[in-house]
Amino acid sequence: MASIFSKIIAGDIPSYKIAENDKYYAFLDINPAAKGHVLVVPKQEVDYIFDLDDDILGGLIKFAKPIAKALDTAFSPIRTGIIVEGLEVPHAHVHLIPMYPDRKGFSLGKKVDLSSDEMQQVANDIRKHL
Amino acid sequence: MASIFSKIIAGDIPSYKIAENDKYYAFLDINPAAKGHVLVVPKQEVDYIFDLDDDILGGLIKFAKPIAKALDTAFSPIRTGIIVEGLEVPHAHVHLIPMYPDRKGFSLGKKVDLSSDEMQQVANDIRKHL
Repeated sequence: MASIFSKIIAGDIPSYKIAENDKYYAFLDINPAAKGHVLVVPKQEVDYIFDLDDDILGGLIKFAKPIAKALDTAFSPIRTGIIVEGLEVPHAHVHLIPMYPDRKGFSLGKKVDLSSDEMQQVANDIRKHL
Repeated sequence: MASIFSKIIAGDIPSYKIAENDKYYAFLDINPAAKGHVLVVPKQEVDYIFDLDDDILGGLIKFAKPIAKALDTAFSPIRTGIIVEGLEVPHAHVHLIPMYPDRKGFSLGKKVDLSSDEMQQVANDIRKHL
């Protein structure tokens, strides 16, 4: 069965899309740990990130780089961090999380509440800098 | 001034070394969030991970992959996760943290207390699987 991320990539589940190419897809995490929290996933459906082959794995972080830079430009966090935990959805994914001065720790889980209009605005703000 | 990681790479500060090539160096975090917590760093001294050029950035995660696999084999965690925060040492670094069933959250900071003998044993156990 397709993972929830494969359904998002296919457009069967809507997402606040940030970027896409033939191998990767990036979109807003709907449970943001911080404003601008983005998920970056390979289109290839592999559960564990370290089971990706070297090319796809290296390309994943290179695909994430300009998105992190766009987050830095759009929202001026201290910088953007990375978390890969991967225990909830069996499809490898990288969390890009802007770290703001007032952040309480740096961990997954919804910590900000944004309306769908605000989420759309966040997505627009990021894409503007890509 | 050389970062603390550059001093570790140069051997001026001792470390529990896990792996090294011409571009990267991996060693045990002395404040382990979990048994087997490894730091992977590029030898190039760049503060922010997303300021690394694409080749070094992609290579960093590819260099980390067999180390994560060695952690999985050596200690049988659920899997090994990644955290990149990078606010404490101005030299890009990736935390590889084995996630065990009894883990309380997934965040940085010392959570296990290992003697130097135990740290050396952990390093040996990882290297055996590389």
